[in-house]
Formats: sequence, structure tokens, C-alpha cells
Amino acid sequence: MDFERHFQSELATLKAEGNYRIFAELQRKCGAFPKVRHFDASGEEEVTVWCSNDYLGMGHHPDVVSAMVDTVRECGTGAGGTRNISGNNHLHRVLEAELADLHGKESALLFTSGYVSNWAALSTLGARIPNAVILSDEKNHASMIEGIRHSRADKVIWKHNDWRDLDRKLKAVGDRPKIVAFESVYSMDGDICPMREIVEVAEAHGALTYLDEVHAVGMYGPRGGGISEERGLAHRIDLIEGTLGKAYGVMGGYVTGSTAMCDFIRSFASGFIFTTALPPAVAAAATASIRHLKASDIERRAQRDRVARLRARLDAHGIPHMPNDSHIIPVMIGDPVKCRMISDILMRDWGIYVQPINYPTVAKGTERLRITPGPLHSDADIDHLVDALATLWTQCAIAHAVA
Amino acid sequence: MDFERHFQSELATLKAEGNYRIFAELQRKCGAFPKVRHFDASGEEEVTVWCSNDYLGMGHHPDVVSAMVDTVRECGTGAGGTRNISGNNHLHRVLEAELADLHGKESALLFTSGYVSNWAALSTLGARIPNAVILSDEKNHASMIEGIRHSRADKVIWKHNDWRDLDRKLKAVGDRPKIVAFESVYSMDGDICPMREIVEVAEAHGALTYLDEVHAVGMYGPRGGGISEERGLAHRIDLIEGTLGKAYGVMGGYVTGSTAMCDFIRSFASGFIFTTALPPAVAAAATASIRHLKASDIERRAQRDRVARLRARLDAHGIPHMPNDSHIIPVMIGDPVKCRMISDILMRDWGIYVQPINYPTVAKGTERLRITPGPLHSDADIDHLVDALATLWTQCAIAHAVA
Repeated sequence: MDFERHFQSELATLKAEGNYRIFAELQRKCGAFPKVRHFDASGEEEVTVWCSNDYLGMGHHPDVVSAMVDTVRECGTGAGGTRNISGNNHLHRVLEAELADLHGKESALLFTSGYVSNWAALSTLGARIPNAVILSDEKNHASMIEGIRHSRADKVIWKHNDWRDLDRKLKAVGDRPKIVAFESVYSMDGDICPMREIVEVAEAHGALTYLDEVHAVGMYGPRGGGISEERGLAHRIDLIEGTLGKAYGVMGGYVTGSTAMCDFIRSFASGFIFTTALPPAVAAAATASIRHLKASDIERRAQRDRVARLRARLDAHGIPHMPNDSHIIPVMIGDPVKCRMISDILMRDWGIYVQPINYPTVAKGTERLRITPGPLHSDADIDHLVDALATLWTQCAIAHAVA
Repeated sequence: MDFERHFQSELATLKAEGNYRIFAELQRKCGAFPKVRHFDASGEEEVTVWCSNDYLGMGHHPDVVSAMVDTVRECGTGAGGTRNISGNNHLHRVLEAELADLHGKESALLFTSGYVSNWAALSTLGARIPNAVILSDEKNHASMIEGIRHSRADKVIWKHNDWRDLDRKLKAVGDRPKIVAFESVYSMDGDICPMREIVEVAEAHGALTYLDEVHAVGMYGPRGGGISEERGLAHRIDLIEGTLGKAYGVMGGYVTGSTAMCDFIRSFASGFIFTTALPPAVAAAATASIRHLKASDIERRAQRDRVARLRARLDAHGIPHMPNDSHIIPVMIGDPVKCRMISDILMRDWGIYVQPINYPTVAKGTERLRITPGPLHSDADIDHLVDALATLWTQCAIAHAVA
């Protein structure tokens, strides 16, 4: 077989569909965020980032930066091994205790990323609970889908956020071990699940609940414990999964739950066992970030104010955006080529960086700009973004939402 | 189902088998390595680490530490998004260029870990090359096995390092796209593959070659390009996979190969697409480490000297160790309970940390201590380790290798 030709031909198909990904090359600068340097063929220029998942700018917070710097100086750059073989650092244990406390759980287990935590935890639970069925919300993240797939457990997909459908499907499964997997804040639509209803339905059927809070930790709840904390439901959920790479501004993922469950995953998950541990400095930075957001509401309040202001300004200009109760503002385009074009014009002519979100991140036909205002976007930044979009909306003759 | 009871019962089985893992809690200290602080119920004490995968101590090298510290200060702690959505940093691109150059390839692609790079690359190649068959060495790492399994491609296992068996099995596969997956240095036995023979057999059958060099990069070859560089074979291998978390002392994984192949994996691998990028500071530290080990042979030479000295001293005391041509010294125990016991005594009575290697990391019945001497282990450290082992060998009445 001519492998090169196969690779090239598949890439050509992606390009023809408009789904070939071009990464914007950036360099962040402490203190300047959300302004960053953008590198392209014509050189470097400053642009404003409107699509970061460092939702609260904690990646530049002095306490978080200091924790990472001090720990690198003190302990070096890497962990030096897997958690089992020389890589288990005191600072990992401190962070796990912090995470267990964040969600009011007995225990927590760190992974190298949120992706790996979902993939490893779901594949382990699905494979090692005999005869298990996983009931998965149809909009669950790729990492959950791949974890379920890897487990080879039976899977039942329920309609997005539809607890009545979940109820029917749980009933139909009958007397087998059931795992209900869902998210609190869905990344691309920004909608929030009806958590109480889902939890009650799962409880009624004796199902284990698996909740992904990656877009909510640090962001919701009085201590940043996510939607499950905000709604007082964390103690009724068996496993809460989260990330250290979004609102906490660092990297890594985790699960929290009972001591036995975390120990079970620790003991059997290939994706946990056979991988080098997170650098101690990353653990220390994440711990500092979590502690800060447990105690301080300043970043969350400033961020909410920015979200509300941007929504109001978009409405005033008739620029359609998907309504939701979260911090994520999806502006629908519905075509991959147009989505890429608008993003390119924003970058080139306006110094605004919003990545086009195309397939496979979202379904074909639902391509969009996904805007995430942060506490550090100024009024002038917001006005500039809305001016740019309003101009483009006119130029591109995309239908306005409002007369 | 009573999930808690299931978890507890599975853990009880592990404990009864002697395969329950207890992590040693450590804290590394720059400048002191391989001495680290060990935390247990009785407090803290200094111990000497003999099982680190930071093989050359690069995790404490001043250039690597400075690169990480300076970049955290300059750019913050995290990347802020996936590579596609705001997380693609200039420093990732610099590192990828460095890696492509290291292996003499057109291109490179970073992942969050070596585990993820194997899992994501093999699952993508296996799933997206129609009708592909993956021929996998029987001792390949868990990350490769899981990647192949996830791809759902047909798999053929060939006898460990047996190129004649590979040849027969390639022939039997017939006219289908074939991928030959193997490692250069095998982690737990430390043996090195007959690379030239494997490559020639694969070439004769038109197979794509996939080589894991995680235990060899930084360690072998004049510039640290691994066994494939040492033997002048890198240009004949299609894909070389490596890690930044062992000899380079940081974290992360990568693949290198043709531009089209790397772009293909970049475009289709779920485990690449849907995960937060490595922190820019991690990328900068890894770049500094690779550059240092491209130019300097000091660490490698010092390390080899330590390995040779330890082997000679073990031989002099009749302590059996598995012969191989690498830097990994396996001392076989063959029983999980004894292996754990010896490790515990070394830690408690001798201030020596060598983790017991039990199932599932190695096959049951082949439990061992895996010793990895580094350039910073002193003659006195080596004498102390050998004294301890010699004493234990007598006490435990484990058969000596030599009369």
C-alpha cells in the first residue's frame, strides 16, 4: 500500500470539506492576557483572544505562577516516573486532598489530562463492572465516548439533557449494573443539564452517576465546585470528573468519589498506571489555583459581568447567539468554509482571535464561533468585537436574528 | 448493584495476590537528586532513588529548570486550550521542529504524554487505514496494546524480537496494508530489539514501521536520537515515537515522520484533538533538554559508567541480574509478596528506594526490582545498594546466581 498517498488523499478530502484545521500560532504573555502575540507568515502582531478555556485568566494569576516557579526551582521539572514507580510526589497527594475537599468526596485521583481521566475512568468502570451498561448523554464529550467504546460495555444513548428519556431507557435495561454518564456544562452549546432530575432518575434505578464538570469547576458554586456544588447535589453524585486545564489555568484531570472507587480506578486503569505522573510544579500550581478560587469570588463575578455585557451588546446589534445559562456564547454560522473565513477576517483585519469550530468538534451544519469572555476583557475589547461582528454580518449578508 | 462492595472485593483480591500497589510518597529536591525526601506514617526521611526514569537527571539540569521557570514567568502556567482552540503556542512549534530534527524527519506532533501518543497514533492509523493489520511485538507497552485494541484493526502478535517470526506472519497476512509496531529498548527487561533485521523484513513486505523509542531517546545515539540513530536506521523507519518524560526529564510524548503522516494523525486522532495542549513552559523545558543532550555526551557517558560499575559489583556478589545491552538492570524476584517485602526492607532499613515491579507491569512470576543507575549515583551509593542487596539475598535465602 502507498501509505503516503492515503494520508494525502484523506487530508485533501478534509480540505475540500472546509474541515482541515489550521492552528493559530500564539504566544501568551503574563500580565497582558487576553492580548497575545500572533505569529503568521507576515510576522508577529498583537491580537485579543476570545476563545480561551483559561476562563478566568488563572494561568497568569501571581499565586499560581509563583507556585509553579517555586516548585520547579525546588523540585525540578518532571516527576521522573509513573505514580507507582518513583513518580508519586508529595504535591500530588496534597492536590488530591484539595480536590476531594472541593467536591466533598472521600478521595480523588489525578490524571495527566481531563481527556485521559474520562477515557481511563469510564473504560475501567465499563470493563470491570461485570455486565455493566453505560447510559450516555448523546452530547457527551469525545473523551467519554472513547472511554465507553474502549470499555466494550453495552452503551445506551439517551436524548440530550432529557431525563424522561433517561428514565425510560434505565427501565428498559432491567436488572443490570447501570452507569449514567453526563456533563454539567456542555462545551459547545454552553447549556447546563437538569442535574437534579437526572440524579433523581438515576437514584430511582440504582444507577451509578458519572458527572463531567470540566467546564464548570472553578466557575460555579461558592467554592468553584461546579454546578453540582451550586445546586447542592455533589453528595448525591458518585463520581465527579474535572480538569485543571480550563478555569484553573494549568493542566491535568481528575476524578473524585468514594475511597474504594478511586482506589479501584487507580488499581486497574491502564491510562493511569502506565504513564508518567504530572510534574510536581503543575500539581502545585493547580493546588494554588483551586485554593484561590475556593476563597475568592472576584474572578467569577468579573467574568459574569463580561458575559452579560457581551450578550447585551450582541443583542443590541441583532447578532444571533445561542441562549444558555453559562459563560459560553456560541455564535452560529452553520457552514465550515464561512466559519473559517469569518475567523480569518477577524484575525487579519480586526486583531481578534476566535477559532472556527467545525466538524468533528461540532456536528456538520452547526459550525460556529464559540466566544468565552474573561474577567480581563475590557469594555473597549467588547465594543471592538461587536463592531467587528456587526460589520461582518452586514458584509457577509448573513441573516440578522432581529428586524 | 452494590458498586462499593464490588470495588472493595476487587481490591481485596489484588491485596490477597500481593499485587495491590502502594505508592511511595516522595519529594524531589533540585541539586540533591538522586536523594529525595520520603514521607510515611513515621515522618520524613532522606532516601536514595534507584528506580527513576529521569535517567540522566535532566529534570534538575539548570538549563532545563531555567527554561521552565522563565517561560512560566513570561507566558503563564497553562496553554489555555486545545492546540486547535487557542492553545497552540509558538513554543509547541519550536519543540516540534526540534523533535523532527532529532530523528531526521519532516515533521513531529506533540501529545500530552507518551502513553497518549502511542494510544492515539496507533488507534488512528489502525482505524483509518482501510483493511489494515497491525503486527505487534508480544512485549509492546500497554499504551501500544490499548491503541491497537481501540483501533479495532486486525492484530497479529509476533514473538518478542523474533524477526523470523515477523517475516512469516507478514507473509501470511498477504496483500493488505501492514503496520509493524515495536520498541527499541523494552522497559522491564531492558533488552534492545534487532532493529536492522526488523526494518529489513518490514521493508520486504512493504509494511509501515512504527517504533517506540521512549526508553532510548536522549540515551542512545550521538545526539540522543535513540537506538535508531545509533544504528543509522532512523531514515528507514516511518514513525518514531518518543517521550519527554524520561531521559528528557519533563513530560509529554510525540511522534515523528513524514509531513503527511503527522498531519493525518493531527487531523484525525481524538486523543490529540480533544485535549488541552501541554503548558508552554513544559514545551520550553523539553526543548532545552533535547538541545542539551544533542550537544553534550557528558550525562550519557557518566550514566553508562555507573551502569557498568553497578553490574560489576552485583556480579562480584553473585546477585543475579538479567543481562542486556541497555541501562536497565532487572533483578529478578519472581514473587509479588517477596518483591514487595524486599522493597519495603530496602526503604525502611537502608534508605534505598527501588519500587517492586509486579503484575500487571510484568507477567506474574517475573516480579522484579528494576534498577536504573543515573549519572549522579556515587560510588558510595552503589556500594551501599550492593551491600543491602547482598545482605538481603543471604537473609532471604534467595539462590545466588554464581557459586
